Amino acid sequence: MRSTLPIRAPEKPRLSSLNGVAASAIRFRDPRIEMAHGAGGKASRRLVEGLFAPLLFAGSPQPLNDAAVLAVDTASVAITTDSFVVRPLQFPGGSIGELAVNGTLNDLAVSGARAHAITATFVLEEGLATAILEAEVRAMADALTRANVALVAGDTKVVEHGKADAMYITTTGIGRPLPGIVVDARSVRPGDKVILSGPIGDHGITILLARGDLDLEADLTSDTRSVLPLIESMAIQAAPGIRWMRDPTRGGVATSLNELARDCGLGIVLNEDAIPIRNEVRGACELLGLDPLHIANEGQFLAVIAPEYANAAVNALQLTEGGEDAVIIGEIQSEPACAVLVTTRYGGSRIVDMLVGDPLPRIC
Amino acid sequence: MRSTLPIRAPEKPRLSSLNGVAASAIRFRDPRIEMAHGAGGKASRRLVEGLFAPLLFAGSPQPLNDAAVLAVDTASVAITTDSFVVRPLQFPGGSIGELAVNGTLNDLAVSGARAHAITATFVLEEGLATAILEAEVRAMADALTRANVALVAGDTKVVEHGKADAMYITTTGIGRPLPGIVVDARSVRPGDKVILSGPIGDHGITILLARGDLDLEADLTSDTRSVLPLIESMAIQAAPGIRWMRDPTRGGVATSLNELARDCGLGIVLNEDAIPIRNEVRGACELLGLDPLHIANEGQFLAVIAPEYANAAVNALQLTEGGEDAVIIGEIQSEPACAVLVTTRYGGSRIVDMLVGDPLPRIC
Repeated sequence: MRSTLPIRAPEKPRLSSLNGVAASAIRFRDPRIEMAHGAGGKASRRLVEGLFAPLLFAGSPQPLNDAAVLAVDTASVAITTDSFVVRPLQFPGGSIGELAVNGTLNDLAVSGARAHAITATFVLEEGLATAILEAEVRAMADALTRANVALVAGDTKVVEHGKADAMYITTTGIGRPLPGIVVDARSVRPGDKVILSGPIGDHGITILLARGDLDLEADLTSDTRSVLPLIESMAIQAAPGIRWMRDPTRGGVATSLNELARDCGLGIVLNEDAIPIRNEVRGACELLGLDPLHIANEGQFLAVIAPEYANAAVNALQLTEGGEDAVIIGEIQSEPACAVLVTTRYGGSRIVDMLVGDPLPRIC
Repeated sequence: MRSTLPIRAPEKPRLSSLNGVAASAIRFRDPRIEMAHGAGGKASRRLVEGLFAPLLFAGSPQPLNDAAVLAVDTASVAITTDSFVVRPLQFPGGSIGELAVNGTLNDLAVSGARAHAITATFVLEEGLATAILEAEVRAMADALTRANVALVAGDTKVVEHGKADAMYITTTGIGRPLPGIVVDARSVRPGDKVILSGPIGDHGITILLARGDLDLEADLTSDTRSVLPLIESMAIQAAPGIRWMRDPTRGGVATSLNELARDCGLGIVLNEDAIPIRNEVRGACELLGLDPLHIANEGQFLAVIAPEYANAAVNALQLTEGGEDAVIIGEIQSEPACAVLVTTRYGGSRIVDMLVGDPLPRIC
């Protein structure tokens, strides 16, 4: 979840008066909300850091993660939330209901937590065919069953025809920390390896093609799935080496790694040849002038692993179903500070920034 | 939250295969979703019980409550979730941001829990003026500060202009049980008293008038607020006597009490003269042919209290700011089973059903 509002919760609720937030703390000056503010890239970050954070988090300096961790008595509870507005509702390999469950399970998983329970709310458009709703509720049920997670609470609202796009689903996940894993950008060190779980861009390009606006066809399906089994396999072999994880959804690998670079103050140097990209994704990106590093994924994750555990982590992933293409794609270096550098096959290199604008709106 | 999906969560996630839900278990046969399915009354209940519950809760027979309670290690955690789609965004006495916080705090409070943390997601319509968004984020911040609750995670999505109505907000609340309070419809007994915290219908009628569709004016404001301080005061004097609580939002007092009647199998007999209703609400209802018992509230709650604690509970409420009008409005009797009977001032009586249809859509 890229535009996640901050993260690690205070152990106790804050008492500071939010009424007293100075107008100067609000740095977000765009007069209107545009699609880019929901794209997970630079504009999203400006909105979250310039408007939401000063008012709702009292300017918390903590890095943006995918889940907050709360202390409840002696227990630690991880919590994450996401709204899903993907269009179309169904696409090759998945649908909004399945995405709403797995997206939230994955936000917990990359935070080092296993989902314990989930809640769901539905905003339904008047006139929606019940058969379409039923299909998505079934998709949610299937995803919950596969993950062995219970849905524990929910809500349904209906808005007039034309005030939504069929349905929006919001899920919140409650999880328990996986033992032995600490995910913290501030623990990342030069020499650490960057691991990617599999090929990138499948989800975003699948959604783009499913909309039918382009005269393009490709034999491609979304990568949407729960990544928890992969992370659990990796943890068995390499838990002490796990420094940081993230699922590169909106804004893609480039945005997630730029956020990491900013949060840890180091450079991330990627080997372009090593990054797995299917020919269909590469072809569509070339045709459309998109960078695969900016395309959204739903069933992949990035991990930064201490060098002495990196091979064990990759081997564990490769031996797990769905992790066959896991690979080291780069490493952490002290330079360029706070940036992502991609070294190309011809010996050149380029800085890759976060996503700017929103070439593919509503991909999740 | 009337169309809350079920309630008390299993202590451990269920393993039953939801893929295997028989088609016959799906009893919801309406071909399309209509506004009434989101109104919190009969149609909402048919949708939840006929479609969501069989697929997502494996036909759990547990009554519908406002929050689920999860066991996390040795800790109990209450959780509730709601989407807010109120129109207009701002109305006398409140706004969507304030409602999104207090509505969720109240769902926890009437479940006997104090909010510990909250999450929020925003679905924003492209083109929304930032000033409008900022006002609602400030309203949320103010409500959180007043309640001393931290926002711990969030998400923002943007949909194209015309695919939402300015903004929808979804909040999820995590709470801790208030010591000594057990809220369970199955504990209700004949002779128990029904307590109402204050005048009903203010919120629904305020929203109706704020829309300006009717040539009506009244000096009325929404009752939106956190009810936790009232419930805490009541608990100090009467915690062992608290059997059940509910905030009568969508569908009003009549719907909440009909749900209770169904869940406990008993009759609820109300004294119409005792129910506090402002003249403005009564007048608008008479003019529009609405029953105040079906009008939504946001800052009131119902409680069923054991007879020996009822006076102490009412006294405690009346001595607490905002509880001055708290009153006993009726009692539990063995007959009419599973129904709500209102005795009128002229000695007559009438059965009051759950809300049917949706005379006032999108009031929360």
